[in-house]
Amino acid sequence: MEKEDNFGDWYIDIVEKANLSDKRYPIKGMNVWTPYGWKAMSNIDGLIRKELDATGHDEVCFPLMIPETEFKKEKEHIKGFDSEVYWVTHAGLNELDVRLVLRPTSETAMYPMFALWVRSHQDLPLKVYQIVNTFRYETKQTRAFMRVREIHFFESHTCHVSEEDAQRQIEEDVEILSKIAKKLCLPYFLSVRTDWDKFPGAYYTVGIDTVMPNGKTLQIGSIHHYRTNFSEPYGITYENENGEHKHVHQTTYGMSERLLGAIIGAHSDDSGLIMPPDVAPFQAVIIPIISKDNGPIVAEAALALAARLSAYGIRVKLDNRDARPGSKYYDWEIRGVPLRLELGGRDIENGVVTFARRDTGEKGAIELRNIEQGVELLLKIISVSLSEKAEKSQISKVEDMDSLDSIPEGKILRFGWCGCEECGHKFEDTYDLKILGTPYLPEEYSGRCIICGKATDKPTMAARTM
Amino acid sequence: MEKEDNFGDWYIDIVEKANLSDKRYPIKGMNVWTPYGWKAMSNIDGLIRKELDATGHDEVCFPLMIPETEFKKEKEHIKGFDSEVYWVTHAGLNELDVRLVLRPTSETAMYPMFALWVRSHQDLPLKVYQIVNTFRYETKQTRAFMRVREIHFFESHTCHVSEEDAQRQIEEDVEILSKIAKKLCLPYFLSVRTDWDKFPGAYYTVGIDTVMPNGKTLQIGSIHHYRTNFSEPYGITYENENGEHKHVHQTTYGMSERLLGAIIGAHSDDSGLIMPPDVAPFQAVIIPIISKDNGPIVAEAALALAARLSAYGIRVKLDNRDARPGSKYYDWEIRGVPLRLELGGRDIENGVVTFARRDTGEKGAIELRNIEQGVELLLKIISVSLSEKAEKSQISKVEDMDSLDSIPEGKILRFGWCGCEECGHKFEDTYDLKILGTPYLPEEYSGRCIICGKATDKPTMAARTM
Repeated sequence: MEKEDNFGDWYIDIVEKANLSDKRYPIKGMNVWTPYGWKAMSNIDGLIRKELDATGHDEVCFPLMIPETEFKKEKEHIKGFDSEVYWVTHAGLNELDVRLVLRPTSETAMYPMFALWVRSHQDLPLKVYQIVNTFRYETKQTRAFMRVREIHFFESHTCHVSEEDAQRQIEEDVEILSKIAKKLCLPYFLSVRTDWDKFPGAYYTVGIDTVMPNGKTLQIGSIHHYRTNFSEPYGITYENENGEHKHVHQTTYGMSERLLGAIIGAHSDDSGLIMPPDVAPFQAVIIPIISKDNGPIVAEAALALAARLSAYGIRVKLDNRDARPGSKYYDWEIRGVPLRLELGGRDIENGVVTFARRDTGEKGAIELRNIEQGVELLLKIISVSLSEKAEKSQISKVEDMDSLDSIPEGKILRFGWCGCEECGHKFEDTYDLKILGTPYLPEEYSGRCIICGKATDKPTMAARTM
Repeated sequence: MEKEDNFGDWYIDIVEKANLSDKRYPIKGMNVWTPYGWKAMSNIDGLIRKELDATGHDEVCFPLMIPETEFKKEKEHIKGFDSEVYWVTHAGLNELDVRLVLRPTSETAMYPMFALWVRSHQDLPLKVYQIVNTFRYETKQTRAFMRVREIHFFESHTCHVSEEDAQRQIEEDVEILSKIAKKLCLPYFLSVRTDWDKFPGAYYTVGIDTVMPNGKTLQIGSIHHYRTNFSEPYGITYENENGEHKHVHQTTYGMSERLLGAIIGAHSDDSGLIMPPDVAPFQAVIIPIISKDNGPIVAEAALALAARLSAYGIRVKLDNRDARPGSKYYDWEIRGVPLRLELGGRDIENGVVTFARRDTGEKGAIELRNIEQGVELLLKIISVSLSEKAEKSQISKVEDMDSLDSIPEGKILRFGWCGCEECGHKFEDTYDLKILGTPYLPEEYSGRCIICGKATDKPTMAARTM
């Protein structure tokens, strides 16, 4: 299956061959996380947790179910979710008095409690996050990690004294994102979504998009400023230093298992997955190369090597199955282990370990004496190299456009837009492309709206989406 | 509130004061995990994960929802759960064709997949586990961590070639339990449950019970042997070495957030929680003792002390709030931090840190030079001491009984039982006590059935349960 020619089929094939998830569960779009897929996802969760903890967010866990009465308090929000939530209507043999919704996201679960927790300006900022599964009744075709009905999800929620303080949180979120994305070797665009595409209830939404090999974008997360849109209906107020009661300003930041989907799409190739070292369940695999007279010596050396690397904190797998090295290479290539270490009689004599990089195929030798540092360095190099390659690929997919005469296929289009809703809808409807929004980070631009011709100093991007 | 006199109220009070969970969520029995409670639970999850990983179990994550058709395949099982599951009947604006159940436990989610995963004897044993939330529509009075409707839950599921191999798994589970319980400083009894009290669908169930200060038992987990009771309806078969197709033998092992409830009940006192060091979100708290002329020196030394302990892997909290030391002592006492470290001008001059143990109140000094090892050792001593105290308390609550003339209150009763259902029911119904079952580990015993007088070589235990 070839990645460049038929990304959709290639993706389905690779998820199955690498055994990251099993889609044969008897509910469509609710897949089983296999051990390998779950380890990769847990590593991603770990990277998220680290950055959130370091910036003073507290991890919590809120109930899954939300009473319909709470769920419906914010009018825009419920309009946005009405058609895609699961309803619990019965418990045991009884019908419930108040129906319960399975969280599609946790605003309406958390905010009644925030109203109890926040009393004074000294309780602010309140910064919490949780990593849980959320539920959306997806009616489009499902695809592992990218579009599913049970979604592994990280969400942070914050409350602030003012709009400005909430804005500073958004900036911190952007900083956190850049650190996490670096470990995932994922480039991305930040776009302030159009008014008709923002999160239901938000003041504004920053979409986080990455580019897939087929030239479509995949939204891997979003950051929202709510102003007081939720704190008003939920009554989340604080007493300021002058004894006045004010509504808090809120933000949220969310990312999902799509991060894993994005990694698969961005880094893998026709031979299988390529896992970024910080995500890989196994960062290195050791394959003993045994000839007829050196079995025990090589086996023992391989065991010692595994122990040394593991003690150093490297996630290492010793593959001592009774199988030919070639078939082992093949298995671990598909599963995307970033570094293969081969250890044979000759290597032991020479005091080296032979390595092969999964990403480039490059081979070489590392001195056994400094094997820990050698492997660590190679993993760093692989990480940087994956980032650079993905970055280049993303840039190559963006095309500036100054007329609507011919629209290139499989590209992210960048062009001027006056910002008005009429022009935006006209463009989206005519070309079946989605306007991703205007850049969140300032960009120099001077041009004309590609639809109405009015002068504008903001570019916009549009693309087909996964 | 006094623990010994009114355990029930004391417990509710302590959970609230220590801020482990917030029960004001608008659905009864679905509580919010606060940062402190969630950290403690995550530490427990970590202990479980470590032992499960070390014994070759793979972590997975199965979908939350189970189609009614799959849920009803094993007749005993569904009879046992029919009255206590939540039903999802609608998605978006549509009624579902097949109703979905929120997992009360995951047999019926996992076993259709095991039927696909297991092909040959080489795929066995299959050993997986997950840590997820489960759901039961509890109609009795709810109590944080002990009886809730959304339950944080660990469950391992295994498949084996034979009944004997499955039995060996049960023995491994008992071993795993002993390691985890040691870290939680929790004593427990293992009882083979009566036939009318075993898990719905099990061949036999081992209940894991611990004793609360009021003399009631709390079941903190269970281990089940299923034989082929589930593999038959779910069609989980393997081809053996002779090419014959056989049903697998299965086991499960589950424990829940009740472990945290048990810890609170077992170790805490009238001044608040006492967290076992391996569970404590903060193992030590540093309180700078500042006098009017040494502020900066003490603050700097406290910071350096925190950094040293943290680098050594100790979970340490530096409390440098602008408050009196006494009020800080009080706060951390309630929250159960096992070790308090005080650092003042005199301590710095003498090159020591003053400590106070939360469990005994004992005070002393540790040399600053070896502070890491000193704190580590004290935490170990506290852990052993908590275990011994809880063990003693458990033993003191067990009373041997050889007649029904007078039944002691607030005790776990140990007596002979012929094992027949008639005598069992008669005893339970007459005295409103639950028979916990017969000892899982062999015990010397010779006596008579306390009900019918028949000779028996097995004791049984009975108690009121939480």
